[in-house]
Amino acid sequence: MRTSIATVCLSGTLEEKLLACAKAGFDGIEIFEQDLLVSPMSPEEVKAMAQRLGLTLDLFQPFRDFEGVTESQLKANLHRAEAKFQLMNRLGMDLMLLCSNVGTATINDDQVFIEQIRQLSDLAAKYNVRIAYEALAWGKYVDTYQHSWEIVKQVDRANVGLCIDSFHILSRGDDPAEIANIPGEKIFFVQLADAPVLSMDILSWSRHYRLFPGQGGFALDQFLAELVRSGYSGIISLEIFNDVFRQSNVERTAIDGLRSLQWLQSQTAQLLKSNGEQYALELKELPGIQDATGFDFAEIRTEDPELVGGMLAQLGFSFRGQHRRKPVQLWTSGDARIIINSQRSRGVEAAVSGFGVQVLDPGASGERGNSLLATKVPRLRSFNEQELPGFVAPDSTEIFFSSPENTQNWIIEFEEATLPNTGVNDGPILCIDHINLAQPWQCFDESVLFYSSVINLKAQPGTEVPSPMGLVRSQVLSTEDSSVRLALNIVPHGLESAIERNHEYPEHVALRTEDIIGLAKDARARGMEFLQVPANYYEDLAARFDLDSQLLTTLKELHLLYDRDEAGEFLHFYTKTIGNMFLEVVERRSSYDGYGAPNAPVRLASQFESNRWSRNL
Amino acid sequence: MRTSIATVCLSGTLEEKLLACAKAGFDGIEIFEQDLLVSPMSPEEVKAMAQRLGLTLDLFQPFRDFEGVTESQLKANLHRAEAKFQLMNRLGMDLMLLCSNVGTATINDDQVFIEQIRQLSDLAAKYNVRIAYEALAWGKYVDTYQHSWEIVKQVDRANVGLCIDSFHILSRGDDPAEIANIPGEKIFFVQLADAPVLSMDILSWSRHYRLFPGQGGFALDQFLAELVRSGYSGIISLEIFNDVFRQSNVERTAIDGLRSLQWLQSQTAQLLKSNGEQYALELKELPGIQDATGFDFAEIRTEDPELVGGMLAQLGFSFRGQHRRKPVQLWTSGDARIIINSQRSRGVEAAVSGFGVQVLDPGASGERGNSLLATKVPRLRSFNEQELPGFVAPDSTEIFFSSPENTQNWIIEFEEATLPNTGVNDGPILCIDHINLAQPWQCFDESVLFYSSVINLKAQPGTEVPSPMGLVRSQVLSTEDSSVRLALNIVPHGLESAIERNHEYPEHVALRTEDIIGLAKDARARGMEFLQVPANYYEDLAARFDLDSQLLTTLKELHLLYDRDEAGEFLHFYTKTIGNMFLEVVERRSSYDGYGAPNAPVRLASQFESNRWSRNL
Repeated sequence: MRTSIATVCLSGTLEEKLLACAKAGFDGIEIFEQDLLVSPMSPEEVKAMAQRLGLTLDLFQPFRDFEGVTESQLKANLHRAEAKFQLMNRLGMDLMLLCSNVGTATINDDQVFIEQIRQLSDLAAKYNVRIAYEALAWGKYVDTYQHSWEIVKQVDRANVGLCIDSFHILSRGDDPAEIANIPGEKIFFVQLADAPVLSMDILSWSRHYRLFPGQGGFALDQFLAELVRSGYSGIISLEIFNDVFRQSNVERTAIDGLRSLQWLQSQTAQLLKSNGEQYALELKELPGIQDATGFDFAEIRTEDPELVGGMLAQLGFSFRGQHRRKPVQLWTSGDARIIINSQRSRGVEAAVSGFGVQVLDPGASGERGNSLLATKVPRLRSFNEQELPGFVAPDSTEIFFSSPENTQNWIIEFEEATLPNTGVNDGPILCIDHINLAQPWQCFDESVLFYSSVINLKAQPGTEVPSPMGLVRSQVLSTEDSSVRLALNIVPHGLESAIERNHEYPEHVALRTEDIIGLAKDARARGMEFLQVPANYYEDLAARFDLDSQLLTTLKELHLLYDRDEAGEFLHFYTKTIGNMFLEVVERRSSYDGYGAPNAPVRLASQFESNRWSRNL
Repeated sequence: MRTSIATVCLSGTLEEKLLACAKAGFDGIEIFEQDLLVSPMSPEEVKAMAQRLGLTLDLFQPFRDFEGVTESQLKANLHRAEAKFQLMNRLGMDLMLLCSNVGTATINDDQVFIEQIRQLSDLAAKYNVRIAYEALAWGKYVDTYQHSWEIVKQVDRANVGLCIDSFHILSRGDDPAEIANIPGEKIFFVQLADAPVLSMDILSWSRHYRLFPGQGGFALDQFLAELVRSGYSGIISLEIFNDVFRQSNVERTAIDGLRSLQWLQSQTAQLLKSNGEQYALELKELPGIQDATGFDFAEIRTEDPELVGGMLAQLGFSFRGQHRRKPVQLWTSGDARIIINSQRSRGVEAAVSGFGVQVLDPGASGERGNSLLATKVPRLRSFNEQELPGFVAPDSTEIFFSSPENTQNWIIEFEEATLPNTGVNDGPILCIDHINLAQPWQCFDESVLFYSSVINLKAQPGTEVPSPMGLVRSQVLSTEDSSVRLALNIVPHGLESAIERNHEYPEHVALRTEDIIGLAKDARARGMEFLQVPANYYEDLAARFDLDSQLLTTLKELHLLYDRDEAGEFLHFYTKTIGNMFLEVVERRSSYDGYGAPNAPVRLASQFESNRWSRNL
């Protein structure tokens, strides 16, 4: 389907917005009147620039507070409308959004609405303008799509149709099923907005918290399916009022928005297919989505590989070799593979720089990433090296796709360079359990959509963790079978003082074992430095859980943390932080499926204390 | 009354929190258990440190999910409670907060609650602990203070009383009047929180958006009056869950919090007095509050006084002289006095650095500022110079108080140094209309309380203005008679790219005239550079208002902006920006009392464009 976006979604000037939309690949844009009004560009210039960029100008919006008014007010409204129709002619635009009256309506009578909209229709016809009538969720008298459709039906003019906006329907909890019964050709325009599940007044929710499809809690694939069923084959557009997007880089936001529409079309096509329904060919499909079956590797960038390598050795990892061509090492234990990369590492003490996931068909995942406008970072190949499609996530993490066979091939690139081969694979760590990535506040929603659309992870319910630097918002994404789990944490805006601003939020790789107590003892014997856990924590554990005193003593001695729920138990510990990263080791007993959330504040406070101490040194 | 604050209000470690509370001057603190749990300090250390700092440890909190449970759950809860009582003994604390059960209660029966709380009372008595029972607004079965009081009455134990929290009562819209009927000695603790008027679920509102008294929309003076009427004379404490405070400088937040309690006591004393009611002497009063009668001056700091002086001359200001001792100039027109200060100005192209307001008794205002913990910045005096009490606002603006007589005295310090005296006072500008100050996001609420408590301005309803950099939150504060008006604007977090981060948000001084058209023509003739207003704006004006075409032409020619409401008309223009400041000239026709809010987006976009152009040069 043709894609469009309202200029109000984006930051910057009107000129910057047009450039960014064209660069991202949108077919057209909606002109939000305010953006034109504050622009030094003349309407003729906007028209010409859009033409040059290959963007259609799809919808002029909003025209407000028109119908249900007194005769004298109607006269003023028609005067105002005529000025806007003339402006639209200069812009070369033919579709105007008419929002149901919120402010000035005083006559609650459908016949009055119909009669007045007919007058608008007559005036619009003189200028070859069509009207798309939209029921706002907080409209004074007209606030449902059923009501706006009833009015449009009775207005019965060729140049008056509907605008359907998912937010105004789903925010009220209304059922979109009746959309399918509206003749598609009477739906003049469609706006698709997602939103987080919040219980607040709809107006504030709408004006500040809308999200691109796939970033919130609305079932937009089902919504779009109803439109397809109606026969609608026009434009799908984004009208997203979001405080963060309005402050973010305009080019990134435009790409994020178009990605959401590509993803949504593909999800909707899948849904219709799985129902055995016919669907419009206009729905753009993406290469087949596939579940990742596990982590391939985690990559740590560091200018000093000895520090990270030492820590891995303490955890029982084996050194598998230097890459035959690059300053890169491979360490493994079980299925956990850690790459230590000292390329492009000047000034980087240590940081989680990327990871790989295994899929059956890496090529298809690569194609999908391309279709979703992800920035490519393919693995550089020399003769006989394994190709892996890769992308840069919004938080700058590099993500690669490989098949189990690919994995065998790239491992060889390390082993064949190493003499003698120290490769053993029987350490106490079994696999990578999850990876925890810090997210700048501007790119959190973009990241959620990136990881769910490009890697096909599902967002789990979010949480918030108190820390000495503020609340840390945390969002887990995982595959259905939990074989790949990511935890995204939004870094607090930071404290005022300069010292505290330098405190970066560390990222980590969590490794799974089946005997954390034995492993911790061995690691301690090898000189591992654990993150210190305060004694008060263990007293609270004793108050909360009826723990065996021997176990409690062991936990305390080894700085292990503990959690328990109905499904099982969770034991874990953290290493000290090196640069901007650390490692976690976890043991999941029975079916425990969480991340020890109650312990996260303990970790954050302890890391803050350590960091403070090192600052004071 | 004794003042206290919960550690959860503040950022940093427990140690940092204690230090900041003591430094601000709180009498005591509430220990939020989580803060202790994540701290490396032992309970004995916390006790000793608090003693050294002169802080009492007033309340251990929270103890959750106790009553209304099954027998086996009760046993576990008593086990948990006993561990906490032992901990409290080590801390030397004797008061625990018991929140009404939110999660685990299954038996909705007051007699069960009473019986189980009596068991807790017996156990607490062994450790000399008292229990303050609080009804949470979202308690499962107990969610009003009337209900919690009914239970406490029937529990009928000396060591069981109430905790009253304003948020849990006012957020539900409950009437606090019945508090006055509770015997004061059965109220063991009082927590005072304000909050902005928001319509969202109470739990989210409570956990993220609470504010210190005076920063939100609750009538806390009336609330505290009910407590005084009950005979309560204990501690008043702050339990404020606020995402921003948790990320802000701990010392500033502590001062902000204590200021709110000092201010609230004084407001409450005034309220009781004005009702002719007796009130407890414990209410701390502040030196008499007085309304400012107008701006005394605005001060612009600049390393190049010629630029700013030139702009003032274009607007018809007269040069009144150099200060006899300092590199400071005075320019006046009517009652508008502008100080151009080039002290401490290296690297400052131009910025609004301070202002003075006139009051009848500057000494009393100075005393009041001191009592409110404002940071002093008294005017430096040499022989025979006028003393003015001054303070630094949270946004770094310097504020001074003077009487009309003081003003005459400090003006002389300029004129006597100037030969020949060019002092004339008949320019077209009549006075300073308002001053617009940028606020860093961390200090917005602090600023609102500062300006309302220290200068006695009243906060008007807030608004939000779209700009190319994001939404700008705007808050006007003014005296009752509008003789002093401030507009505080929160600067958006900013854009990602480095160039855009360098774009600072400019501040401005708005000057009032009675003939803006004449003034604009004269200023243009003198070479004034106006902020450019896009042609599209004037077309929209024509569509919105039935304006005389001659007037419209004049507006467009002179880059004047226009607004109209029921009360009157508003014409205004902006100068170009110098450094980080610009000037506005306004004409208010009839009783127009606003600030041309619909035009603010035009200004912001035009300034953004200008700034972009200058960046590109």
